[in-house]
Amino acid sequence: MKWPGRGRPAAPRTRRRAAPRVDRIALGDLRPDPEALLGRIAYLRLAYFETASAVAGRATDLSDREAITGVARNVLEQHTAIVAMLEARGLESAVAMHPYSAEIDRYRRRLGEPAWHESVLTLHLSAGLLDDFFAAFAAGLPAPEGPEVARLLETDIGHDALIGILQAGVASDARLASRLALWGRRLVGDTLLVARGALADARDEHGDPTTTDERRVEPVLNDLIARHTRRMDQLGLTA
Amino acid sequence: MKWPGRGRPAAPRTRRRAAPRVDRIALGDLRPDPEALLGRIAYLRLAYFETASAVAGRATDLSDREAITGVARNVLEQHTAIVAMLEARGLESAVAMHPYSAEIDRYRRRLGEPAWHESVLTLHLSAGLLDDFFAAFAAGLPAPEGPEVARLLETDIGHDALIGILQAGVASDARLASRLALWGRRLVGDTLLVARGALADARDEHGDPTTTDERRVEPVLNDLIARHTRRMDQLGLTA
Repeated sequence: MKWPGRGRPAAPRTRRRAAPRVDRIALGDLRPDPEALLGRIAYLRLAYFETASAVAGRATDLSDREAITGVARNVLEQHTAIVAMLEARGLESAVAMHPYSAEIDRYRRRLGEPAWHESVLTLHLSAGLLDDFFAAFAAGLPAPEGPEVARLLETDIGHDALIGILQAGVASDARLASRLALWGRRLVGDTLLVARGALADARDEHGDPTTTDERRVEPVLNDLIARHTRRMDQLGLTA
Repeated sequence: MKWPGRGRPAAPRTRRRAAPRVDRIALGDLRPDPEALLGRIAYLRLAYFETASAVAGRATDLSDREAITGVARNVLEQHTAIVAMLEARGLESAVAMHPYSAEIDRYRRRLGEPAWHESVLTLHLSAGLLDDFFAAFAAGLPAPEGPEVARLLETDIGHDALIGILQAGVASDARLASRLALWGRRLVGDTLLVARGALADARDEHGDPTTTDERRVEPVLNDLIARHTRRMDQLGLTA
């Protein structure tokens, strides 16, 4: 028996849907609004700083506490540098950060106050993901500011210390590994929303909002997820 | 009617009690144990840093939050400098701080988690009192370390910002003034205990513990209380 064309109808549809070529977004090609981007990054740094010092304060081991305090210090230095850039533009940092505080606070509230190792993982994965994102995104700002912000965000805040703490925890407690794997998966969706929020501020090469076409944004998010998965792998956690 | 000598009996007793001349302790003349003192100061800085960043994070106004984050940054810089001194002595900071962590943690627990303005006051008064104390105490360490630590602790961590926040609060809410006055009085006893703890480590010029003779320690504590009272006055609070 012949079933000519069986299953075929779907194929052209699929092809047709993909047909209008979509220019994928390269983050560095976007035109972010400088003050929006700097304000957002500054506030996010402030939030990370507070998270890091709170996580440090909850460490039971004084060496871990010192190590995470080091992360807090590095993040605070980044915050201070971004604030200096805002001030160089004649902006008060509190005013520049204000429009983004509610959104980022919501993100923090959604993550809640998980157990200590989960909080360390948040710091590692969430800062990892968003630093990747914002470093690439900031590269679209005019020089010298753009490259400067990108370089700043690419500076290691001390991930090795966080990785060391997490690996030691996982090595000594098998249940912790599955708890952390779950948390890492739970975390990524909320964190991507923060990146999306920043993309919504940007304009593409035609001056159009970038988020009106999901297909253009998707590759950016997929790339962030791929890097997130590698971070999970490095900890021996299933992403 | 004559009441010769009325009330007199007390006078000779008072005089007699004061009779055996007590050499008052001048903090700078004591011989603190350097590693104990540095470990204690380092841990106290770490605790203040965590308090400051937590207080910053609870600020409802972003400018206040930035200002208190600045205090956290200054305290963290002091911590980092003391840690560097410990490391120059070949000590790991976590090990050097450890003996003092329980005592200082107890102090923090006793203070609890008061309302926001109370926490700002804690930062101002407690850091003010103990920085005075430890700066004078550290001056007894051999040069160059002693003067260096003293100079470090005399560096302003940003008290003006804290005073500004407190004065604005008091100006807009009369009940806050009485709440803060109460808190300031409540605070001083626990804070003096931390100074006492450090004095207990020190030896006097004869190599004897300084705290065995209360009368020698009292003037030091009285001086700290007098300065505390001036800080309260500056805020318009009754000490």
